[in-house]
Amino acid sequence: MAVITVVGSGMMGSAMSYPARDNGHEVRLAGTPLDREIIAEAEKTGFHKNLKRRLPDGIKYFQIEDLEKALEGADLLIGGVSSFGVDWFSETILPVIPESLPVLSITKGMWETPEGDLISYPRLYQSRLGNKKLSLNAVGGPCTSYELADRDPTGICFCGGDIALLRKFKSWFETSYYHISLSTDVTGVECAVAMKNAYALAVSLAVGLAEKRENETGKVHYNSQACLFGQSVREMRRILALCGGLDENIVFGAGDLYVTIFGGRTRLIGTLLGRGLSFDKAMEALKGVTLESVVIAKRTASAIRKQIARRKARAEDFPLLLHIDDIISRNAPVDIPWEKFESETVDHLKDML
Amino acid sequence: MAVITVVGSGMMGSAMSYPARDNGHEVRLAGTPLDREIIAEAEKTGFHKNLKRRLPDGIKYFQIEDLEKALEGADLLIGGVSSFGVDWFSETILPVIPESLPVLSITKGMWETPEGDLISYPRLYQSRLGNKKLSLNAVGGPCTSYELADRDPTGICFCGGDIALLRKFKSWFETSYYHISLSTDVTGVECAVAMKNAYALAVSLAVGLAEKRENETGKVHYNSQACLFGQSVREMRRILALCGGLDENIVFGAGDLYVTIFGGRTRLIGTLLGRGLSFDKAMEALKGVTLESVVIAKRTASAIRKQIARRKARAEDFPLLLHIDDIISRNAPVDIPWEKFESETVDHLKDML
Repeated sequence: MAVITVVGSGMMGSAMSYPARDNGHEVRLAGTPLDREIIAEAEKTGFHKNLKRRLPDGIKYFQIEDLEKALEGADLLIGGVSSFGVDWFSETILPVIPESLPVLSITKGMWETPEGDLISYPRLYQSRLGNKKLSLNAVGGPCTSYELADRDPTGICFCGGDIALLRKFKSWFETSYYHISLSTDVTGVECAVAMKNAYALAVSLAVGLAEKRENETGKVHYNSQACLFGQSVREMRRILALCGGLDENIVFGAGDLYVTIFGGRTRLIGTLLGRGLSFDKAMEALKGVTLESVVIAKRTASAIRKQIARRKARAEDFPLLLHIDDIISRNAPVDIPWEKFESETVDHLKDML
Repeated sequence: MAVITVVGSGMMGSAMSYPARDNGHEVRLAGTPLDREIIAEAEKTGFHKNLKRRLPDGIKYFQIEDLEKALEGADLLIGGVSSFGVDWFSETILPVIPESLPVLSITKGMWETPEGDLISYPRLYQSRLGNKKLSLNAVGGPCTSYELADRDPTGICFCGGDIALLRKFKSWFETSYYHISLSTDVTGVECAVAMKNAYALAVSLAVGLAEKRENETGKVHYNSQACLFGQSVREMRRILALCGGLDENIVFGAGDLYVTIFGGRTRLIGTLLGRGLSFDKAMEALKGVTLESVVIAKRTASAIRKQIARRKARAEDFPLLLHIDDIISRNAPVDIPWEKFESETVDHLKDML
């Protein structure tokens, strides 16, 4: 039995307690200063107010003041903050934990350097730690928290530098519904799944665009979504190559893109934009909803624009991403550049009939 | 203006008349012996009884007896038969057309040789022609006929041996809603999009499997579909490599997989199987529905099994396809081998922190 401490009791951090508890591990759920109410209610009733589900029995709950107690004798620290909590996590938590305590981060997205390079959170964290050495690992791949809580089968990937350690984590979390691949290509895994934020928004533009025709015919339309999905896969592979990640990770990226298109808030904003609302108006309509994916999308586009300026990348390889960026960063109207997705391949003499 | 003759007035063959007529070409729609009623009604009323839409104005209609007149002076022959009409098309039509008339085939799927190689229909047709040389081209990629008829934006690929000829076809069919990529890799394009039949069935198994949990929670579940989608992309790329197609074609395959999952009959059978019905029972429930995709899926699996037997491929690389084959060819119950989708990648020393 391992002792697993989760810092950050948002939906995904808390959902990790299902496979951990089902495997009989001790789970300590520690809230950030923003999670005070979640922890207070879960401790009293066992119910997670945002996940809207009963958490597994036997979890120990901690407010942030009791962090030291939560960390005592822990075998693994799960970094459960959203991308908005990355600074807090790296400034408040990482400096106080022992080097012997490995970290598994569930935070989505990549960090943009001033030069426009995209780096994974484990790499960002390490760069901020100075001489301190930590084992920094991450989870990537298609997994929504409420479905994990419902024990719906899902396949994700743990990534980190030490395959033996990753195998140990896998032995702790693998269940009949939580299926874990392993990879030492942290950049590749994290890059592939971060990209889906921009591209899920892109594919869902077609949902809004098609509504008029659907109202006329009563049939839901998918051709345009499929075209944008294919183009997304194409551009995601190019970004993966730019970041130096292995191409095979597109499997996690495509799966994560698929689930994100159907997963709620990102689809909502894409659909509103596709209907003809400006980005500002669409954000107004969704007031109060935190759109982590929009922030990640902006950051990805900003990084690629800088790489284009540095001639590390070519604008014509990313027509869809740049259009999304025009929409969300410059309030441009939706005008999908379909022609720019057309390719011409001359190859394979063997096929000439 | 070109003269475009379509032989086979099913839904997709007929839908090709929208971009052709919108560009001002002469379109001659010739029915197969099975299309007699479609042609008779469309000639009288302009309405296509299966597509359930008014066809563009100005089409000239022909019953099969008048084929010779339909072919007179034609610049392009569109092969509009389904995969069930391939023998008829290659025995009845191809032998009577002049070598100067190029063919563009919309038939989905690949042909299985006795050795278990998968070959494209253009290649099959050529092999049956003996000394006669025809320009045999094909259309691949995500496109449902009724959406094409509704002029919903879509992106597909014309493939064939002569890029100059493909460019001419593109100039005839490209519209504001029909976006055409070109490729001389016929095997790659056709293989990528044929695979989606088996895998769309696979992904939709998760729809049926999740229904119980969805009824409990009232939320649609996507994690399992996303896992199967990712695994499908992985296996499709492997099949593409086995067939000798370019890997880039996965863009068309992934897009076509996406649209097929939502496109109707294939999803229906996958969902029924996921709910627990045996294949025989599921087919009974869908009695009267032609499941071209099931036939294509069986053929793909059969070919891969033969290649495994010949040690050209490894069974462990295709766990999802082989499970689908067990279900549809051996009436096996659904029992998705999630663990077999887990991968382990040790690479990228640069990422070791």
